[in-house]
Amino acid sequence: MENKDNLVLEYKCLDYGFVRLVDWMGDDSSIVQAARVSYGKGTKSVSEDTALIRYLMRNLHTSPFEMVEFKFHVKLPIFVARQWIRHRTANVNEYSGRYSEMPDEFYLPEPDQLRLQSTLNKQGRGEATIDNASDVLSRMKQTQERLFQEYSELLATGLAREIARINLPLSNYTEWYWKIDLHNLFHFLRLRLESHAQYEIRIYAEAIAKIIKQIVPIAYKAFEDYILEAIRFSRNELNALKLLINKELPPDEKLAELGLSKREIQEFKEKLSKI
Amino acid sequence: MENKDNLVLEYKCLDYGFVRLVDWMGDDSSIVQAARVSYGKGTKSVSEDTALIRYLMRNLHTSPFEMVEFKFHVKLPIFVARQWIRHRTANVNEYSGRYSEMPDEFYLPEPDQLRLQSTLNKQGRGEATIDNASDVLSRMKQTQERLFQEYSELLATGLAREIARINLPLSNYTEWYWKIDLHNLFHFLRLRLESHAQYEIRIYAEAIAKIIKQIVPIAYKAFEDYILEAIRFSRNELNALKLLINKELPPDEKLAELGLSKREIQEFKEKLSKI
Amino acid sequence: MENKDNLVLEYKCLDYGFVRLVDWMGDDSSIVQAARVSYGKGTKSVSEDTALIRYLMRNLHTSPFEMVEFKFHVKLPIFVARQWIRHRTANVNEYSGRYSEMPDEFYLPEPDQLRLQSTLNKQGRGEATIDNASDVLSRMKQTQERLFQEYSELLATGLAREIARINLPLSNYTEWYWKIDLHNLFHFLRLRLESHAQYEIRIYAEAIAKIIKQIVPIAYKAFEDYILEAIRFSRNELNALKLLINKELPPDEKLAELGLSKREIQEFKEKLSKI
Amino acid sequence: MENKDNLVLEYKCLDYGFVRLVDWMGDDSSIVQAARVSYGKGTKSVSEDTALIRYLMRNLHTSPFEMVEFKFHVKLPIFVARQWIRHRTANVNEYSGRYSEMPDEFYLPEPDQLRLQSTLNKQGRGEATIDNASDVLSRMKQTQERLFQEYSELLATGLAREIARINLPLSNYTEWYWKIDLHNLFHFLRLRLESHAQYEIRIYAEAIAKIIKQIVPIAYKAFEDYILEAIRFSRNELNALKLLINKELPPDEKLAELGLSKREIQEFKEKLSKI
Repeated sequence: MENKDNLVLEYKCLDYGFVRLVDWMGDDSSIVQAARVSYGKGTKSVSEDTALIRYLMRNLHTSPFEMVEFKFHVKLPIFVARQWIRHRTANVNEYSGRYSEMPDEFYLPEPDQLRLQSTLNKQGRGEATIDNASDVLSRMKQTQERLFQEYSELLATGLAREIARINLPLSNYTEWYWKIDLHNLFHFLRLRLESHAQYEIRIYAEAIAKIIKQIVPIAYKAFEDYILEAIRFSRNELNALKLLINKELPPDEKLAELGLSKREIQEFKEKLSKI
Repeated sequence: MENKDNLVLEYKCLDYGFVRLVDWMGDDSSIVQAARVSYGKGTKSVSEDTALIRYLMRNLHTSPFEMVEFKFHVKLPIFVARQWIRHRTANVNEYSGRYSEMPDEFYLPEPDQLRLQSTLNKQGRGEATIDNASDVLSRMKQTQERLFQEYSELLATGLAREIARINLPLSNYTEWYWKIDLHNLFHFLRLRLESHAQYEIRIYAEAIAKIIKQIVPIAYKAFEDYILEAIRFSRNELNALKLLINKELPPDEKLAELGLSKREIQEFKEKLSKI
Repeated sequence: MENKDNLVLEYKCLDYGFVRLVDWMGDDSSIVQAARVSYGKGTKSVSEDTALIRYLMRNLHTSPFEMVEFKFHVKLPIFVARQWIRHRTANVNEYSGRYSEMPDEFYLPEPDQLRLQSTLNKQGRGEATIDNASDVLSRMKQTQERLFQEYSELLATGLAREIARINLPLSNYTEWYWKIDLHNLFHFLRLRLESHAQYEIRIYAEAIAKIIKQIVPIAYKAFEDYILEAIRFSRNELNALKLLINKELPPDEKLAELGLSKREIQEFKEKLSKI
Repeated sequence: MENKDNLVLEYKCLDYGFVRLVDWMGDDSSIVQAARVSYGKGTKSVSEDTALIRYLMRNLHTSPFEMVEFKFHVKLPIFVARQWIRHRTANVNEYSGRYSEMPDEFYLPEPDQLRLQSTLNKQGRGEATIDNASDVLSRMKQTQERLFQEYSELLATGLAREIARINLPLSNYTEWYWKIDLHNLFHFLRLRLESHAQYEIRIYAEAIAKIIKQIVPIAYKAFEDYILEAIRFSRNELNALKLLINKELPPDEKLAELGLSKREIQEFKEKLSKI
């Protein structure tokens, strides 16, 4: 981990949102410490620690990653919060529209995000933007203003906040404290950095990734190499792959040049022998 | 459990909502079965089974209650869904506004629910209703209609559903399958049947209570007696209580008339001796 | 699902153990039902249901699999129970050595399981068996008999069961009810069917696999194809793979013969384009 | 929180065990911080912070307590570990008898813990000790020595560690890292500080209580007042209590002297009005 003062722990997200790392417990060395209680003792070199973390990651020995904990303060539109909260293995304290007045802050997309429904992907937006994006945006903005105006007027009548807020839109901003361990955070990132995740939550996932890779650089790199940028081939795909492979395996030195450790070269050969 | 055909497994909630028990696994006898694996063997009489369930409930031996599982189909406004989802120990599949168009259904309160902010309770509504409730309601209804109209027009431009929906209000209905075990459901009910829970989620909690008391009548009665209608006195309150108590304890027969079992009479005396 | 009466729901495991499916809720159709609430409506054909389940599995849309629940009765040695219990997302009621006397049943390995420590794998046994396996086994058996004898004598002195049992060995059998949803059960199976899992727990995982593939045959097949027998290649391994691949991709008909659906052929090409 | 250097963060437990707080995140102020995001803004005085924490505790607003996290290193006999691990909402990395040799350390009770089975309590020990406690202990010790001797001899044959250990007893020591949030830790303490919890795990719970009350003194005091030393009276018990209460309620000043805050006095009167 770098010098703590040089870390960038807060990123703006969308128009009014942010992610800020408020506190954390542990770093790469905590993963090693926890793993060593299971797998063996004694101080080891940095390179052995890196190798251990990478071994744990690629073999799904996930529990040592649970020993690092992060607490974020996040401001986000309600529709993003609704996707986010589905990750259950986290602790949350959210701003309450029953106790407090909701803020006059609403998410308005950038014009280039007003995309047509994807034709390939039933859940998402495609590449092309709609016509008249700026007209649509100004209309959306007016609606948001009118809804907040109406909310304010309802509050002025003395109506209970918990009722007055029910016609506020999903674009309204909320905020929360969100605490999660590294293993479950990697799972969140895996799903929310993915290209099919909704753009708006991906922005937050990217900010979180930038923050935590400063705290746990070795674990984050392992996560990228073995999970995020790995590809899983199904049983049938492996059979198809077999048809494509007709060359001799390159020598170990060549494989080592590609960044495979001795142990990974052996694992790679085992994987190929199963195809 | 009564004859399955006589059970009422669905209740309407609010204006467009419902709770419907889709499937379940186990009943009172499953709680006993699981407890007996821990506490001892052999077939026992019904009265012993009832006593065992009540013993487990009042002594926080909660794991046998986890052996009963319920699956509900629920239709509910989004602001209710946002409170509900905070109960993390459940399985959920929700209707997705990314895949499908949101329905033209919005929660509009009954006039007598348009209450003033409570002066006692920072989070809720009080007893008095606002002036001009019917005007307010017709205005809220118009807003809901206008918002759905705008949503439909945005979809007509081809805008991706996941963006078109962001100005839909929290009063819009969603639906989900929700699966939970009895122990965690009791915890949900304890919090959501409580007088400080928002009225709209309480309606759903009451419907769920009516449904499950048909499936697990003995456990539900124990839950009412030992949790829902019990009162916990703090250390200082117990000292205050002591000042109020100056009579002789009534004879055991009198206590038995109040419904206390022999074991409970003993437990009651132990509690009093601690005051 | 086959006719319920033809199902084999109990398997013997090791010398005194067993796995028995006591109850369950849902089957392949419940996965589809839950998914359709998110992804769209209407009755679909069986082949579409199968395609949907397989789509969910390979895209990590895991929540619909949580809608199926299984309850097992298991008898198992304590050292196996200690590994098993690490899977936290399950409900458990275990036989208690505080309430009840432990049984005179101890796991004694088959002679061919008395293997030497693996030289490759720090955690497991290798292929070769030790010398004098039968002598070792008879000595282990004597120890187990002596320990149970001592336990019985301690109980005869009136010593509390919770203390008398502390010198009983990890080979002693215990039993429990274990309830888990299908998604988390697949995760259990993925880890415990794996060749590095200890042989004794693998026996139980195999029995569970045989049981549930009768209840959720389509989901189980998808689990085998996309998870259990899939191989994940890391970023560096993908670069190595690239060096091996020099042929033209076979025509789609050939890929279809290998069992890849139209959608999977497209996904396969996308994967290859990323290499 | 006191000066960090004055804290006592490690306690010996039983003969070879210990609990050591390795790391933590947050303290009383983190609970307040998380609650304020829900309930309102602005800096508040210490006395208001204390009142807020106490309010949260007695009204089951448990989520802010989840924002504090503790990581312990614990050494404990296996039979204690088996009870402890049942608390599922924690992260654990345990020493592995598959990877490493088990230590020559076994729990031997103090003579005064060799108690007779309780006649009142099916699960525990009573007050009286058995006859010949010292004979029994020396026999137990011999057994432990013999079992470790046998284990060493099996390892010497080259037998895989994962098999050699199966006749080691439940009194053998293991160790782990255990990470848990404050809310779930309070739940653990509530169950394991209780008089019916097995003596040996109670020793650990008491050590943990001593450690954390230095870190979160206000929250711990609230836990004692409202949970640990509170008494819950069931519906029927409340009816019995009514028969005992015939005095006028003392004046508010008297109640304040007992330590009840203004708000608690009001709550107390509400509780009495429900009796």
